[in-house]
Amino acid sequence: MGENLALDPSRYFIVVPDQFGNGLSSSPSNSPPPQDRMRFPLVHPYDNVRAQHRLVTERYGIDRVKLVVGFSMSGQQAFHWGALYPDMVERIAPICGSARTAVHNFVFLEGIKAALTADCAWAGGEYTSPPVAGLRAFSRVYAGWYTSQSFFREGLHDTGGGVEGFLAGAERSFGRFDANDLLAMLATWQAADIAAHPRFAGDLAAALGAIRARATVMPSRTDLYFPPEDNEIEVAQMPNAELRVIPSIRGHLAGGGGNPEDRRWVSDQLEELLAQ
Amino acid sequence: MGENLALDPSRYFIVVPDQFGNGLSSSPSNSPPPQDRMRFPLVHPYDNVRAQHRLVTERYGIDRVKLVVGFSMSGQQAFHWGALYPDMVERIAPICGSARTAVHNFVFLEGIKAALTADCAWAGGEYTSPPVAGLRAFSRVYAGWYTSQSFFREGLHDTGGGVEGFLAGAERSFGRFDANDLLAMLATWQAADIAAHPRFAGDLAAALGAIRARATVMPSRTDLYFPPEDNEIEVAQMPNAELRVIPSIRGHLAGGGGNPEDRRWVSDQLEELLAQ
Repeated sequence: MGENLALDPSRYFIVVPDQFGNGLSSSPSNSPPPQDRMRFPLVHPYDNVRAQHRLVTERYGIDRVKLVVGFSMSGQQAFHWGALYPDMVERIAPICGSARTAVHNFVFLEGIKAALTADCAWAGGEYTSPPVAGLRAFSRVYAGWYTSQSFFREGLHDTGGGVEGFLAGAERSFGRFDANDLLAMLATWQAADIAAHPRFAGDLAAALGAIRARATVMPSRTDLYFPPEDNEIEVAQMPNAELRVIPSIRGHLAGGGGNPEDRRWVSDQLEELLAQ
Repeated sequence: MGENLALDPSRYFIVVPDQFGNGLSSSPSNSPPPQDRMRFPLVHPYDNVRAQHRLVTERYGIDRVKLVVGFSMSGQQAFHWGALYPDMVERIAPICGSARTAVHNFVFLEGIKAALTADCAWAGGEYTSPPVAGLRAFSRVYAGWYTSQSFFREGLHDTGGGVEGFLAGAERSFGRFDANDLLAMLATWQAADIAAHPRFAGDLAAALGAIRARATVMPSRTDLYFPPEDNEIEVAQMPNAELRVIPSIRGHLAGGGGNPEDRRWVSDQLEELLAQ
């Protein structure tokens, strides 16, 4: 998003909502009892999407959306938007996200959950100061997942501080989160499934088939938890979708916009999608 | 190994040594002070190989080895055997192992280490009863790594107990280990590097070039921490080596012999190697 990119604010009205659980929107860390900490309810991606729908229709009076685009969990939301509001959404572009969280992805998330909560200081979510060792473990486990084997083989992790510098970066990224907020977001991620809605009653093919929006689905070639194969299977069941694999060794991070080359590539696909 | 397999004990004299740190050989859990617990010294794969060399030469009087074969960390040892004793080793067959632990692999190991030691009950290795939450976290993180995305996509994880059953299996596998023993073995794994020997002084190309044994190197196509690419690069620097990729979706486990199909495939390659 930005000048000279497909999502140019001077050309489009762009709404960027936060998701529940991230510490800004309603979250375990900022909700009063009885919905504070681990008592915060499970939020499904559809809950985020419904709240966003109210935002754009009731707050802004919008009844057509030119494009829903998102990365990672927001990429998952893009699928959910397409399935739930097919008359409203013209295009979707899920980046490094899937319509349903794959079992392997679910297991990866079980791992980082277990790492975080192994710290006795977590105390079932009733900590009085942050569970530092748990957040550190969470970060260090995550650090093995969000890029790729090739990323490290090519030395892209080393920006001067070697492996420890890279791991310290992960600790900075995740260490600023509240532990219960992280767990709430992981629960949303694990629950992601566009078929998990009364309209589809668990029928994934029906839910994917309901996405009439023109879709450009962009996994990263080297993503370890949203691998291209999962999107390939989903795209085959969507009436108006195309798979375009980001040719990157940056793994999941390829879709995050942090790298100029990958960002340009994604922007070019979005440009093309918006022109259709 | 077994009847009707390449490593048939009725045809060959087969020696299967344990490695240091595994709880049977000298380990943190069974060493007296001052080498007990986290005071156990770092063991390099070369230390294991040197001890094994003494075993076969001094105990059995053997001066030629027809084949050194190993899986995972033992696959790493096979490379080290080849580099250190080129006049003694006729063939090596590293399965799902590498001559040097790749940076990505190192980072994966940092993750499981952090997960295990996040448990305050670990107490810097001075626990009086097992750090249960840490061992559980270790197991659940590991469970995302040792198979593959496709393994789960095809439902091979589900032998009746679903995802939780699969995770419980991982907890049983690793939960029986002593925590300090696990950490000692991870340290050996992280240190694996055939160039880390005075003879090679850090020169990996020289160390790989020193392996004159005929080598069949067998990564699994879907191994997440010993990916085929790392072996491909190594094989290109070995004078007498061939890469044969196990065509399996079982990830790292493909090389462990637990699955009949993969076991047969590996056995066939070994049969061919032994006939040369």
